[in-house]
Amino acid sequence: MNQKQTIELMKQRVFEANLSLKKMGLIKLTWGNVSEINRDLGVVVIKPSGVPYDVMTPEQMVVTDLEGNLVEKKGWKPSSDLPTHLVLYQKFEAIGGVVHTHSTNAVMWAQAGRDIPVYGTTHADTFYGSVPCTRMLTESEITSCYEQETGKVIVESFVKDGLDYQAIPAVIVQGHGIFSWGDTPEKAVENSVILEEVAKMALGTEQLKKQVEPVPNYLLDKHYYRKHGKKAYYGQN
Amino acid sequence: MNQKQTIELMKQRVFEANLSLKKMGLIKLTWGNVSEINRDLGVVVIKPSGVPYDVMTPEQMVVTDLEGNLVEKKGWKPSSDLPTHLVLYQKFEAIGGVVHTHSTNAVMWAQAGRDIPVYGTTHADTFYGSVPCTRMLTESEITSCYEQETGKVIVESFVKDGLDYQAIPAVIVQGHGIFSWGDTPEKAVENSVILEEVAKMALGTEQLKKQVEPVPNYLLDKHYYRKHGKKAYYGQN
Amino acid sequence: MNQKQTIELMKQRVFEANLSLKKMGLIKLTWGNVSEINRDLGVVVIKPSGVPYDVMTPEQMVVTDLEGNLVEKKGWKPSSDLPTHLVLYQKFEAIGGVVHTHSTNAVMWAQAGRDIPVYGTTHADTFYGSVPCTRMLTESEITSCYEQETGKVIVESFVKDGLDYQAIPAVIVQGHGIFSWGDTPEKAVENSVILEEVAKMALGTEQLKKQVEPVPNYLLDKHYYRKHGKKAYYGQN
Amino acid sequence: MNQKQTIELMKQRVFEANLSLKKMGLIKLTWGNVSEINRDLGVVVIKPSGVPYDVMTPEQMVVTDLEGNLVEKKGWKPSSDLPTHLVLYQKFEAIGGVVHTHSTNAVMWAQAGRDIPVYGTTHADTFYGSVPCTRMLTESEITSCYEQETGKVIVESFVKDGLDYQAIPAVIVQGHGIFSWGDTPEKAVENSVILEEVAKMALGTEQLKKQVEPVPNYLLDKHYYRKHGKKAYYGQN
Repeated sequence: MNQKQTIELMKQRVFEANLSLKKMGLIKLTWGNVSEINRDLGVVVIKPSGVPYDVMTPEQMVVTDLEGNLVEKKGWKPSSDLPTHLVLYQKFEAIGGVVHTHSTNAVMWAQAGRDIPVYGTTHADTFYGSVPCTRMLTESEITSCYEQETGKVIVESFVKDGLDYQAIPAVIVQGHGIFSWGDTPEKAVENSVILEEVAKMALGTEQLKKQVEPVPNYLLDKHYYRKHGKKAYYGQN
Repeated sequence: MNQKQTIELMKQRVFEANLSLKKMGLIKLTWGNVSEINRDLGVVVIKPSGVPYDVMTPEQMVVTDLEGNLVEKKGWKPSSDLPTHLVLYQKFEAIGGVVHTHSTNAVMWAQAGRDIPVYGTTHADTFYGSVPCTRMLTESEITSCYEQETGKVIVESFVKDGLDYQAIPAVIVQGHGIFSWGDTPEKAVENSVILEEVAKMALGTEQLKKQVEPVPNYLLDKHYYRKHGKKAYYGQN
Repeated sequence: MNQKQTIELMKQRVFEANLSLKKMGLIKLTWGNVSEINRDLGVVVIKPSGVPYDVMTPEQMVVTDLEGNLVEKKGWKPSSDLPTHLVLYQKFEAIGGVVHTHSTNAVMWAQAGRDIPVYGTTHADTFYGSVPCTRMLTESEITSCYEQETGKVIVESFVKDGLDYQAIPAVIVQGHGIFSWGDTPEKAVENSVILEEVAKMALGTEQLKKQVEPVPNYLLDKHYYRKHGKKAYYGQN
Repeated sequence: MNQKQTIELMKQRVFEANLSLKKMGLIKLTWGNVSEINRDLGVVVIKPSGVPYDVMTPEQMVVTDLEGNLVEKKGWKPSSDLPTHLVLYQKFEAIGGVVHTHSTNAVMWAQAGRDIPVYGTTHADTFYGSVPCTRMLTESEITSCYEQETGKVIVESFVKDGLDYQAIPAVIVQGHGIFSWGDTPEKAVENSVILEEVAKMALGTEQLKKQVEPVPNYLLDKHYYRKHGKKAYYGQN
């Protein structure tokens, strides 16, 4: 397969991943975007900015290089969140797809400025620890290169607490929304679906009990490693 | 295009905007309405009163002048909320469409008599500040020209606090529901969709944290002006 | 139209009203039922007991007299809640249709044993005052003729507080669910839809504000009489 | 009907029961599974592990003996929760189907580590008492045979409090999700649907009133025995 064919397939996948976000109820209007990187070719494909989902086509997906320069000159502007995606691709070297949403329950946590604790196995099956909430960006960060600084503050959240971005493939951006990632755009979408569900469950849990405790670490270990790593035994592989 | 054709197109647009409110889940039964104004022709087109959505047709949309007198005598009565729309068109001179709903989460705020604070960027992307809640109407206001007084109390909410109706294109009417507006009926519908989502997110946010703080003004500025005004860079324009 | 034709039409209407409850999300599994009375013929038509909605047919609707004796011997048992419906038809002489549901938010109020206060115009448009919650049935009431006693305790709730069943066309049965009524089965269904929505809104309202006050009586009057009575001006009549 | 035909029918039923869980909104992604036992043949049929619902076929349902050994060697691995199902079939001798879900509201109770009290008749119609929540598994239980120990701790919850698994056909597993059961897989699915609805209603009830009391025992008795046992009079039998 030549480079052009590879990019066409990326555009198709990114298009479908964007639609699946909408179909699964994580997106209102045009809020949200999915991208994919091909590190060999040095290109990223991302949703165009502000195009309604019901008229979007695979051809409109925007192709850029790793600095965000347009590779194809077709006139569509990339999602304004592209610089955040690029920082994540640069710092989280094993990921292949990134998702951004304002999904309802996850945003509640973002607006409350809180990490989502591991209250159960639904969380532990995918996120090996609390899903962190970033600090609020400073005024100078926001007024300079806002979207790029958003990426940096996400990375900072992982670095300062020694978190593994592969074991916790999502983040809450304070006052804003979420980013998730994975090996592929499809996996990144799946992680955003799970985060939204986990956010909803955790909210209800706190309503049922004051001072909920996270699950014991041995339960977290069990569930996470039942699905991930060398000894995983969930699924058909 | 002659005047008759222009009005037919308005009726079609108003009809479709009303249906889209229903489709997006903002309307139960017949609660809610959309109108459009053409200031050159001096006409307003609005949903008929109490007609079920599944039998409504574009022909039933009611055409009135700016005082609410019927322009076409077809026997359909306009929405009883027409006088509120007319006050808004009169005082908010740049708007082209108005929406009224009893959408579930926004009504919760109306019934609690509270403004919706800016807890995050989902809000800041569209509303440049808290969405205000009007005062309760007095007995004499309600027993005289109720729907017209509703319009006046909305305008009062913006005037007394020096709010810009174009920067905050929606309002909560205490004990009642919401009105939103925009350049077009479609834009007014979009703003009502966003308000309902923002109302839901804000409720959940307060359940996750006591004493939530609004986002810093610099984040509000950034998000609002990323989408609006001369330096906007969101979307394809 | 002869008696047989009239009853066939009733069966068709009751069948469709039952399906519409399901379609509007007020019914899980087989929980809920709708009936219609023809006072001239002295017959009631009601849903059969425990029949799944996806296989139900109009022919299965059960026809009884006003004491609950089967008029048609077709082998289908009427809803076990029939005796409650019969008491309501006997005591509330102007009603033509009755609905029973376990709709989610209304049941929350039933389980909390609380009346739903008039927090806004969505409520006031249909219910002219708080929707009352019955007292809990006593042990002897429950162990004798349970369903009939349920009807009696509903009537008691209206009588003891001097409530007008036509102005407040629904009730919450403590620890159980709701009954609503109206001139027709369709109107009774509509009232159950509104009650569920009002129950949801009132719950959220209390979450947003401690000590919510009901709307002023003059607002209640305005909204109720805007839609009901001689001076009503909502809708096309 | 020979053994092969019987097993093919089981596979079809288990396949459809799994799909119905998804259709009714109890399952996100691949979280959840249904199984059926045939005690005469000594076989259990269960969903394969981690297969997406939209590509699943009846042929992929996995057939094992009562110790979990594959009866058909087709290469599909059974759900990783199979050992839990097997313990339930072994100890709860009258059941024919088992369901596991992470349904949203029920998980909130699991994460809060709480039994669901009988707050109303919706609960009492199906569950004759609180739906118990298991204790948290110990580290040694989790690190040895986790899924089997999950089954054991469920049985322990019923034995220690003298509960009747036929009268309370579901359980909450602390920090995890729910299991339900019944005479057939369809009945087990129905019980999981009811549990999710009851969990949602109970959460809302507690939000409306501090210190909610369970319904009186005589109401519990009435509703449970109206639908179950020799004197049941609900439904067509």
